[in-house]
Amino acid sequence: MSMLGGIEAGGTKFVCGVGTGPGDLHCESFPTTTPEETVGSIIGFFERRGGGDLRAVGIGSFGPVDLDPNSAQYGYITSTPKPGWRDYDLGGSVRKALGVPVGFDTDVNAAMIGEARWGAVRGLSEALYLTIGTGVGGGALVRGRVVHGLTHPEMGHLRIPHDLTRDPYPGICPFHGDCLEGLACGPAVNARWGILGKDLPDAHPAWELEAHYVALGLVNIALTISPQRIVLGGGVMQRSHVLALVRKEFLKLLNGYIVHESITARIDEFIVPPQLEGFSGVLGSIALAEQALADSRA
Amino acid sequence: MSMLGGIEAGGTKFVCGVGTGPGDLHCESFPTTTPEETVGSIIGFFERRGGGDLRAVGIGSFGPVDLDPNSAQYGYITSTPKPGWRDYDLGGSVRKALGVPVGFDTDVNAAMIGEARWGAVRGLSEALYLTIGTGVGGGALVRGRVVHGLTHPEMGHLRIPHDLTRDPYPGICPFHGDCLEGLACGPAVNARWGILGKDLPDAHPAWELEAHYVALGLVNIALTISPQRIVLGGGVMQRSHVLALVRKEFLKLLNGYIVHESITARIDEFIVPPQLEGFSGVLGSIALAEQALADSRA
Repeated sequence: MSMLGGIEAGGTKFVCGVGTGPGDLHCESFPTTTPEETVGSIIGFFERRGGGDLRAVGIGSFGPVDLDPNSAQYGYITSTPKPGWRDYDLGGSVRKALGVPVGFDTDVNAAMIGEARWGAVRGLSEALYLTIGTGVGGGALVRGRVVHGLTHPEMGHLRIPHDLTRDPYPGICPFHGDCLEGLACGPAVNARWGILGKDLPDAHPAWELEAHYVALGLVNIALTISPQRIVLGGGVMQRSHVLALVRKEFLKLLNGYIVHESITARIDEFIVPPQLEGFSGVLGSIALAEQALADSRA
Repeated sequence: MSMLGGIEAGGTKFVCGVGTGPGDLHCESFPTTTPEETVGSIIGFFERRGGGDLRAVGIGSFGPVDLDPNSAQYGYITSTPKPGWRDYDLGGSVRKALGVPVGFDTDVNAAMIGEARWGAVRGLSEALYLTIGTGVGGGALVRGRVVHGLTHPEMGHLRIPHDLTRDPYPGICPFHGDCLEGLACGPAVNARWGILGKDLPDAHPAWELEAHYVALGLVNIALTISPQRIVLGGGVMQRSHVLALVRKEFLKLLNGYIVHESITARIDEFIVPPQLEGFSGVLGSIALAEQALADSRA
């Protein structure tokens, strides 16, 4: 039986899976240590689970990554500050070790692809996946395919108005201070309030502020690509009352400017949580594997 | 001889042209008054210039417009505050009067298409056209085609940090106050300084501030769609020293985060003026006509 593999390559762990979709997915996770050790673990996983039946692998990776097929560094993790991983040929290492075609994209693009194929945005052609966790990142779907461009989107670093009256916290981004990620990522929430986000009660003002910043990011992205639906994922968004606050702030910020009933009458279906829970990325990577296999046969 | 027509439908004038590209374009302009009068003038133009040889017309229109081919209001100008034009069937009126296929898009998408076909972004697949004039608007090119989505981009209304220390002016947007358009459009410059922009000397602090706001918008859009090139048009950008200031601010705001030599080493080729001067929109509309003709034959 032929089999596809997916790798969600994250800064703290790699999630590997084999299967053809949500119905038959088998996953294992490995901590992200050195490239040699981590890639050794994932190769071991695919040899155990797939063996000779493995036909292709897809990778959704933390970044920045090189997605230009004409570049000598295609498939590399490039200018990451993560020790040992800078300029590492992740795509090439996996391809050489397993001897199968490898699809390669960013972690958030893979999550976008997973949700488009099997999850919250099935059947739609324009969408956004934004994750708010240790970092902030986004993948955009346009005409059914993720946007790459010159490099790839880096939506975490959008500049948004910083409400200095109620929030003197300067922001945590080492490049920009108070960009979207600098103000809204999990570590920024922890540092601003001196309490871990998970220990902040629902009624704490932290969440109104967080929803305000996330909604500012979403409004800016929505006005740029006009998505049919927005999927909001990541650790910080696991609190369902935050999602409700984000929807309210989003409408308040648009202030009636975009007149379309998908937004004005059905905001609960416009800004939604992921449907594939923690598996958007690894499933999207399996979809990347499928595409790499088709390309190798074309 | 068969002939194509283009209409750049603006809030103050309609520019009509016939031809097949920049080499043989013939244009005339008509003031925007009532829909009946204005459309009567443009029909007269095409009957005089094209007559029986006119094969198709493209329209790049001020908005908001309905671009959904499945909508009963496809080709309409929708919720504009402009007297007489709300819910006006511009596409349908032109089609009925001239009896040819009509292509329809926003004014900024038409300009993006014109610059992609014959101008500053020929041969590129990902790009941005942003215009800073009476209003602010943008068109995005992804995989060689303009982005539509749920409605269409409305990039003028991005929220950016408002520098209240050096700029107490509250912004001119009736919906959002100090959004990008509210802070950076021509009428905002005039109102903030109490002098018409054209009368402000190059050394006036107005231009540093203007470049800062425009660069904030560009950074946000660039981080969302990752364009290979940005075309910056519109009346306010006709001052060439402002373009140089925008490039400088753009690099300062990115602060080395995107490592790609198209940005870091060649910013003068990354943020550029339109190549088709005032004709990006009408030429892009001719490209829309060409597409409408091909679609009608498919």
